[in-house]
Amino acid sequence: MEIKELGEFGLIEHFTKGIKKKNSSTVVSLTDDAAVLSYENKHTLVTTQMFMEGIQFDLTYIDMEHLAYKCAMATMSNIFAMGGNPRQMLCAIAIGKRFVVEDLESFYSGLRRACDKWHVDIVGGDTSSSYTGLAITLTCLGEVSKAGVLTRKGAHPTDLICVSGDLGAAYMGLQILEREKTVYYQQVQEYNSKLKASKGSNDKQALQALAKGKELIDHFQPDFAGKEYLIDRQLKPEARGDVIESLYAAGIHPTSMIDISDGLASELKHICKQSGCGCRVYEDKIPIDYQTAATCEEFNMNLTTAALNGGEDYELLFTCPIGDHEKLEHLEGVRQIGYITDASLGAFLITRDGNEFELKAQGWSEDKG
Amino acid sequence: MEIKELGEFGLIEHFTKGIKKKNSSTVVSLTDDAAVLSYENKHTLVTTQMFMEGIQFDLTYIDMEHLAYKCAMATMSNIFAMGGNPRQMLCAIAIGKRFVVEDLESFYSGLRRACDKWHVDIVGGDTSSSYTGLAITLTCLGEVSKAGVLTRKGAHPTDLICVSGDLGAAYMGLQILEREKTVYYQQVQEYNSKLKASKGSNDKQALQALAKGKELIDHFQPDFAGKEYLIDRQLKPEARGDVIESLYAAGIHPTSMIDISDGLASELKHICKQSGCGCRVYEDKIPIDYQTAATCEEFNMNLTTAALNGGEDYELLFTCPIGDHEKLEHLEGVRQIGYITDASLGAFLITRDGNEFELKAQGWSEDKG
Repeated sequence: MEIKELGEFGLIEHFTKGIKKKNSSTVVSLTDDAAVLSYENKHTLVTTQMFMEGIQFDLTYIDMEHLAYKCAMATMSNIFAMGGNPRQMLCAIAIGKRFVVEDLESFYSGLRRACDKWHVDIVGGDTSSSYTGLAITLTCLGEVSKAGVLTRKGAHPTDLICVSGDLGAAYMGLQILEREKTVYYQQVQEYNSKLKASKGSNDKQALQALAKGKELIDHFQPDFAGKEYLIDRQLKPEARGDVIESLYAAGIHPTSMIDISDGLASELKHICKQSGCGCRVYEDKIPIDYQTAATCEEFNMNLTTAALNGGEDYELLFTCPIGDHEKLEHLEGVRQIGYITDASLGAFLITRDGNEFELKAQGWSEDKG
Repeated sequence: MEIKELGEFGLIEHFTKGIKKKNSSTVVSLTDDAAVLSYENKHTLVTTQMFMEGIQFDLTYIDMEHLAYKCAMATMSNIFAMGGNPRQMLCAIAIGKRFVVEDLESFYSGLRRACDKWHVDIVGGDTSSSYTGLAITLTCLGEVSKAGVLTRKGAHPTDLICVSGDLGAAYMGLQILEREKTVYYQQVQEYNSKLKASKGSNDKQALQALAKGKELIDHFQPDFAGKEYLIDRQLKPEARGDVIESLYAAGIHPTSMIDISDGLASELKHICKQSGCGCRVYEDKIPIDYQTAATCEEFNMNLTTAALNGGEDYELLFTCPIGDHEKLEHLEGVRQIGYITDASLGAFLITRDGNEFELKAQGWSEDKG
């Protein structure tokens, strides 16, 4: 169905009917100029993130449902990284004429699935046309107890540096998706030149080769064998609310926290800068999945670079008082990778062979995945 | 300066340094994954709006500073329309390579000017590249006393329908801007064809005409004489927080409220639908500025249509108990334009000659200003 047929108000009705609110803090949603929320005795958290077609995502890799899920997880991840619980989501989306209502259905289905997972209410948004690509902005609100706010600036020298999950997998997933895209377009190109060459020809062999080329394209199957985990990490990341829950259950109070969206190095530099500290991180302690390591080798890439600068992991990076060492040891899926130092000592990676390399945050680059 | 030189984090620092927070409800801003807000004993309001180049704005009419100011006013208008006070703003912006740091300076300058006007803190945001046009999403948070929330659904039969300011001016301002754009491009086109025709020619007269054409383009002055108010309403709208203040001061408690962004007819239909009511609006009571009327005549357009469906007025439309009639009479800049009826009586405009026409909400259209 064409989006025009529904119109903006029709669209909103279409996608919001049957949605029931999950949080008592949601007072008025979806039907007015603004949503009304009630955060009694708690602090309100709010974060906004933008996702532009061709920059943050490529629709040749990801479908609308996964895209929405991923955007929502990336945005909620910011609320968890403050020690809070996400409660409400607003979605602004601008879409071009090439999209139909079914695309939006898929999008909202992914958005709802992500929000349902963490009991988040969709309370508002905006819809616009776009002359060009798809543009998405998600805004997430959450709540946090006044004592529970985890900023980037509470780290102290001797604090342990911890990270959840493993790093670099989403980045390697992207490498594989890009490789398969290249393979596909090569096949298309080959087919096109064969087609051009065979015009008017009756050569049986040439026509057979052509038919085979056509079949290859039509039934193109990207080769993800043995890389399923990496593809999953790239296309369906999960915000680590579970880590917040298990830290809380274990009685661990981090001194600072950030989520890893731009790569470990960049995020660590943020914590160091805001906390006025330095750090030492051990290369051999950075958690890396087997598939990430194997794929790095296959692509002839540096594994530590992938883990340090890869991005899109959406794991949590945090610091804890050294006294929490033992409690942290027992925490599944959390690794201690180094410690906070005085600012004068700088921010360094200690390599497997004992050398020290200064940590460099990757800048903002337009072709980053 | 190229935006790349500063990088994303440099950009954020550049535009946020020296900003002081204005609200006690702003606890942490700009430096973390999410902003932390504290709304003790009040309800939180949140609204998000998207502005896409070529759809909601055209950079041939509006510069970056006015654009940001307008977007901010449009977004804050939603908070006022809930009876609240805007307190915090988040700005997500995606920009293409053709923009330089100075463009962003202008943008943030306009954003700050709008926020300063209503004592709003800029607490966060996001920056992305864009392969195509400029995309902006603003999210505004505000506070409102629990008893003071004004939704769209409190209108009752016999309530008076009121509107602030005057209507249709922003729409007529857009017509003038579009006319002048056409005039400009006609001059460019004429010059280009003359240039083509004169290639290799030494005819003095032709070359003189060419030089004159060039001068016309270089010193193009759009003709806004006598239309300054309309241009102002289109390029520099103001959110009507002052109306909220004067209603409060006069002890008037509206039963419903909405801001007029899509046109009076559309917004009235929203109130009627949400409140389960009908309405009667008197054509001769709709407030219209002299310039709006004169320009409608000049353009051979229907004045009432411009006022009913024009959009972008950002005035407030609200309903009040009939008992407030006298208080409203004394309120400067507010007009009573009709009354709420039972739903079964429908939503109608009563024309100057006493005829009734059903109010039609304008749908979502891609070429709307």
